[in-house]
Amino acid sequence: MMTDNAGEMQECNGAGRALVLGADGYLGWPLCLRLVARGYDVYGFDAGLRRRWVSEVGGRSATPIADYMQREALLQQRTVRDGQRVEFMWGHVDNSEELRACLEAARPDVIFHLAEQPSAAYSMRSAHTAVESQVRNIAGTMYLLWLMRELCPDAHLVKLGTMGEWGTPGVDIPEGGFFDIEYRGRAARLPFPKQAGSFYHLSKVFDTENIQAAARWGWGLTFTDVMQGPVYGIRTEEMPGGDCADKGLLTRLDYDECFGTVINRFVLQALSGQGLTVYGQGGQTRGYLALEDSIAAMLLLAEDPPDAGSCRIVNQFVDFWSVLDLAKAVCRAAVSMGIIVEIKHLENPRREAEQHYYQADREILPALGWEGTALPEGIAQFLQDARPFADGIDPAVFAPTTRWQK
Amino acid sequence: MMTDNAGEMQECNGAGRALVLGADGYLGWPLCLRLVARGYDVYGFDAGLRRRWVSEVGGRSATPIADYMQREALLQQRTVRDGQRVEFMWGHVDNSEELRACLEAARPDVIFHLAEQPSAAYSMRSAHTAVESQVRNIAGTMYLLWLMRELCPDAHLVKLGTMGEWGTPGVDIPEGGFFDIEYRGRAARLPFPKQAGSFYHLSKVFDTENIQAAARWGWGLTFTDVMQGPVYGIRTEEMPGGDCADKGLLTRLDYDECFGTVINRFVLQALSGQGLTVYGQGGQTRGYLALEDSIAAMLLLAEDPPDAGSCRIVNQFVDFWSVLDLAKAVCRAAVSMGIIVEIKHLENPRREAEQHYYQADREILPALGWEGTALPEGIAQFLQDARPFADGIDPAVFAPTTRWQK
Repeated sequence: MMTDNAGEMQECNGAGRALVLGADGYLGWPLCLRLVARGYDVYGFDAGLRRRWVSEVGGRSATPIADYMQREALLQQRTVRDGQRVEFMWGHVDNSEELRACLEAARPDVIFHLAEQPSAAYSMRSAHTAVESQVRNIAGTMYLLWLMRELCPDAHLVKLGTMGEWGTPGVDIPEGGFFDIEYRGRAARLPFPKQAGSFYHLSKVFDTENIQAAARWGWGLTFTDVMQGPVYGIRTEEMPGGDCADKGLLTRLDYDECFGTVINRFVLQALSGQGLTVYGQGGQTRGYLALEDSIAAMLLLAEDPPDAGSCRIVNQFVDFWSVLDLAKAVCRAAVSMGIIVEIKHLENPRREAEQHYYQADREILPALGWEGTALPEGIAQFLQDARPFADGIDPAVFAPTTRWQK
Repeated sequence: MMTDNAGEMQECNGAGRALVLGADGYLGWPLCLRLVARGYDVYGFDAGLRRRWVSEVGGRSATPIADYMQREALLQQRTVRDGQRVEFMWGHVDNSEELRACLEAARPDVIFHLAEQPSAAYSMRSAHTAVESQVRNIAGTMYLLWLMRELCPDAHLVKLGTMGEWGTPGVDIPEGGFFDIEYRGRAARLPFPKQAGSFYHLSKVFDTENIQAAARWGWGLTFTDVMQGPVYGIRTEEMPGGDCADKGLLTRLDYDECFGTVINRFVLQALSGQGLTVYGQGGQTRGYLALEDSIAAMLLLAEDPPDAGSCRIVNQFVDFWSVLDLAKAVCRAAVSMGIIVEIKHLENPRREAEQHYYQADREILPALGWEGTALPEGIAQFLQDARPFADGIDPAVFAPTTRWQK
């Protein structure tokens, strides 16, 4: 986590220089809070696209959130050592000049790349959103690879991918990206095939394939590509009391069909007296994790990089739940708070297997001491955390309108 | 190959309406000549990027070629039936409005999509060319998928991919895109893994994955995705005599490091008295085919589409040769013309296996009666065809300057 220039280390005198691309997002903001609390010099970079996209689809954050420049000021108030730097920059990762200026200012030891269009449904709305999702995501990561090679070849890139890159292959999903098989009598170690479920998920596949190729060609850059499951919740260690909202510390909480991931939507449906909307049979199984666990995992991975010049692919989730079982878990937690909730099945707007085998390896994070919150406990906490924001919910925003098939 | 509107069929009264995206390219132009000779109404679409890119890297076509509008006029002179339409349009596939106008004018029964940045070395020159290669290729194919769904869902898309999408996996490469394996005791049919060798090759992988996804999601479009080996030569059936150049019929013949594929470069090196430059040991093995065989194969595939709504992945090549054996084959053919040629080994600017197992299935095209020219015969013909253009060769253009690794 250190630069190899002794002069700079003295100047820095902390945990290192961290750059968060997508600092204004759902994960980016709590990650910045964590990095400041751990003594990093923190550089943020964002173009405000998440706010624009959510607004474009008629959504809004259920939580009140500070604006980007307020957030920079909040972080500056929370520094934990003399000379600790916090600087938020404005710019697009898919603009090479803006990204270059960012890297030249930040001179990072570690880069967290979260600056991507993160919604499956958004990517399936139209030709325009499909192209925007793939082009922005791919171009941003591509420019980052070339500029790292030129400007900061020793930095460690922690890139956010998704468990959705693997799809539901019907066999175990290994960790690391490769599997050993025999085919027509010959043994080989091959990339594990990807069967992503939306143009967004495919954009993450393409990022991973570009990153793996750069490693294969000997570019000498150090990568951790995180295959993360859907994240839920709004609380991290940096948000201890009930006055987090007043202090502007909360992260965003979306519940529209595009940017509201399934547990976040269920919890807000429960709190606002709506039925939980399960798409199809609800047998779709994925590995989930709480926001706190996601932030903790990214820090652990950043601070324990793989061999220099290599690409480490990590599966990041706590445990597997079907969508229907998730809905039931939310119901149970709500009942214990005195809230009675109904489960409704909607016709599935997506094209996905609703009953399938699902098993994935997860060894890298537990070996670093990461455990993660059990889902029922996490959901109970999340319901408490989100309850103050239930009154402002607009139920019209929950309904899915984007269909995978014409 | 017919529209399902009887009125239009009467109006058309021919083999069908064919649209060639990238009509001005190395393959696009001979394909248009073939389609006109077969009685198709032929619509071309091109933005002149190939000419611009070749010029940008200091290259030029060894053959004299007509300009785009001259080519339209040449095709119009070669129509074989009354009322046969030929129309060349200008536009970019990655501009949705330009592509929309093209599809609305052409109302195609079959679309040949050759309008992509086709060079591995070009894609590896800089961040800019890497992004341009991937963004243009992916956005063009993506807009095409959405616009086909809206405007011509019954058209058959013949999309040009590359055998390079598979890389050199060390096991047999199946045809069709899938393979059956067992992993940890469970059997599965999975996409065959791709390990492409450049950012260009990766862009073709991404196109294939987007196309396969659209088929998986039930978009109802009909696809043939052609995994083609490197093509060589300049002659097709429509260029019978020695006066093809005077008539403006020839296709382009590039020999620069970016757009000159290996056999084209070797033949022009031989004819201009240069040594043949083999990268590294020369054990790199691929499946090659002659220009005439490529054009014939695309016609056969177009006229025998797969099941409606499905995606057929075809391996298109004649036979396997290592680069060193190719060089020797060119030497032998040259000697028989009285030309003595030297083989030189250059340090390999690419990152690729130089000794490896290589075997790929190829059953779809032979089942349609396609055989292909044996390589020694094809090279001997090509040397004769290219000889008139040897005087104008600029030897400086042969040298590789783009390196895969910094």
